[in-house]
Amino acid sequence: MANSAAGTLMIIDRLWERVEKQGPVCLGLDPTPELLPEGFSHRYQNMAQAYWAFNKAIVQATLDVVACYKLQIAHYEALGLAGLACYRDTLRHIRANKGIAIGDVKRGDIGSTAAHYAQAHFQGDFEADFLTLNPMLGSDAVAPFLHYVQSGEKGAFFLVRSSNPGAQEFQELPCSGKPLYMHVAGRVWAWGERFVGRCGYSAVGAVLGANPHVLTTVRKAFPQMFLLVPGYGAQGAGAQDVAPALQNRNGAVIVAARSILGAHKGKPDGAKNFADYAHQAVLTMRTEIQKCLS
Amino acid sequence: MANSAAGTLMIIDRLWERVEKQGPVCLGLDPTPELLPEGFSHRYQNMAQAYWAFNKAIVQATLDVVACYKLQIAHYEALGLAGLACYRDTLRHIRANKGIAIGDVKRGDIGSTAAHYAQAHFQGDFEADFLTLNPMLGSDAVAPFLHYVQSGEKGAFFLVRSSNPGAQEFQELPCSGKPLYMHVAGRVWAWGERFVGRCGYSAVGAVLGANPHVLTTVRKAFPQMFLLVPGYGAQGAGAQDVAPALQNRNGAVIVAARSILGAHKGKPDGAKNFADYAHQAVLTMRTEIQKCLS
Repeated sequence: MANSAAGTLMIIDRLWERVEKQGPVCLGLDPTPELLPEGFSHRYQNMAQAYWAFNKAIVQATLDVVACYKLQIAHYEALGLAGLACYRDTLRHIRANKGIAIGDVKRGDIGSTAAHYAQAHFQGDFEADFLTLNPMLGSDAVAPFLHYVQSGEKGAFFLVRSSNPGAQEFQELPCSGKPLYMHVAGRVWAWGERFVGRCGYSAVGAVLGANPHVLTTVRKAFPQMFLLVPGYGAQGAGAQDVAPALQNRNGAVIVAARSILGAHKGKPDGAKNFADYAHQAVLTMRTEIQKCLS
Repeated sequence: MANSAAGTLMIIDRLWERVEKQGPVCLGLDPTPELLPEGFSHRYQNMAQAYWAFNKAIVQATLDVVACYKLQIAHYEALGLAGLACYRDTLRHIRANKGIAIGDVKRGDIGSTAAHYAQAHFQGDFEADFLTLNPMLGSDAVAPFLHYVQSGEKGAFFLVRSSNPGAQEFQELPCSGKPLYMHVAGRVWAWGERFVGRCGYSAVGAVLGANPHVLTTVRKAFPQMFLLVPGYGAQGAGAQDVAPALQNRNGAVIVAARSILGAHKGKPDGAKNFADYAHQAVLTMRTEIQKCLS
């Protein structure tokens, strides 16, 4: 607590500074067996250990060009306990190297349960700097997470509108004159209003799919809301789709995973230099986005 | 697939039969340090091992009086890898003893991610018979789970309306003339319509908080939807609140955790006989519910 009094930067200010210096790319560390270089996994006892070696190499090659990392925990849960050990180790590795790590867990449950989830993912084995969360259970269910945000050291991104086709079924439903996701966005802003950092953005932000209309609408209504934008690259969105999320080249991070982790695919030296290809793919993505902003 | 051709029972039929024989109590295995008997945890190397010993004793004492078990994974995630080993072991123990285990994970994410979650929780280390899921990302996001349901061996309960105060903020929002949760319930029924078992209920059901109005409305609109009803006991609901979920004493399971796991608290012999107290608490709850139905 008393974070600003202590003079230390809030986590949202650290993220903002990283975007200023290194651009808005958020690298999704979402390995799959198919994304690993040819023959890579055979060198390890199991797939989880291969993921860990892969992640370490990717992080080392990209730490100075990305804003942050996002780990989709489902990719690790799918490998059971061994996968979650890799999740833990990757988070620790990023944070030990002064990187910023987002745990993409999208947890959401009633307050007494949420307190256990907050403990699980804001401290202990799976400690991340930011979490993605599901807001659908309302204010009392998110309070245990906001308790950690209050310290200044943690932040959260609530799912406001996803980037998949099914997002239209509920998130776009018209409720009292506006789509459901705008009700959610308003509530998310209210939750985070008191956690605005020096950078002018709140440590409580929103996950918004790379849809230009949605990004423009939410960006205009909530200019101090930091946005986490998935959908770039392999999921189909391009630089012009995500540009409306950014203001003065900041205020959002743009997620890409497959297009960067798999940048080595089809290259003769890809298996050997996969990490360099990932580094290069981040630079290319950064340039594509910056072109759309100037 | 071709489950009915093979003559084996679908998981929803097994659950229905269990309710017929043993009543509708779903025991929530959601341990906390405070719920353990006095001095219990000191006998174990860590809290996760204490949970495991506690769970084993509780399961042994209640297997013949409950319909099924529900494990809230947050309680295990909070203890990191060691906690998740206990989650895995408890699920295995229940299923090896022919009990039915619901993994209360409330996962929900886009399709490619959902496929990893389905792999994580319908097979491998964390395999459960049923899962609770978050429906907010829509049809394409739930398809990977329904793929497992199609085999007949797995089932799902989608969160339709939770039992906490914040449920009103979004789930009760009026959308085109009815509350959001009724839109969700309709979609959940559509997802599960083709998975109705011999018992007449679908293997795709709903999580509905113990609110008599909500239960009555959904029960009437979707008579073949199996309901998972949390909120009994320590969360405040009584037998009359949950009675509308049941039809001919079946079609729903009623969850209680704290009131049963902690039934030994304040008893002179509670630390020694905590499992007997849990057994007795299940019987009492069962009787209370049955009284309201006759």
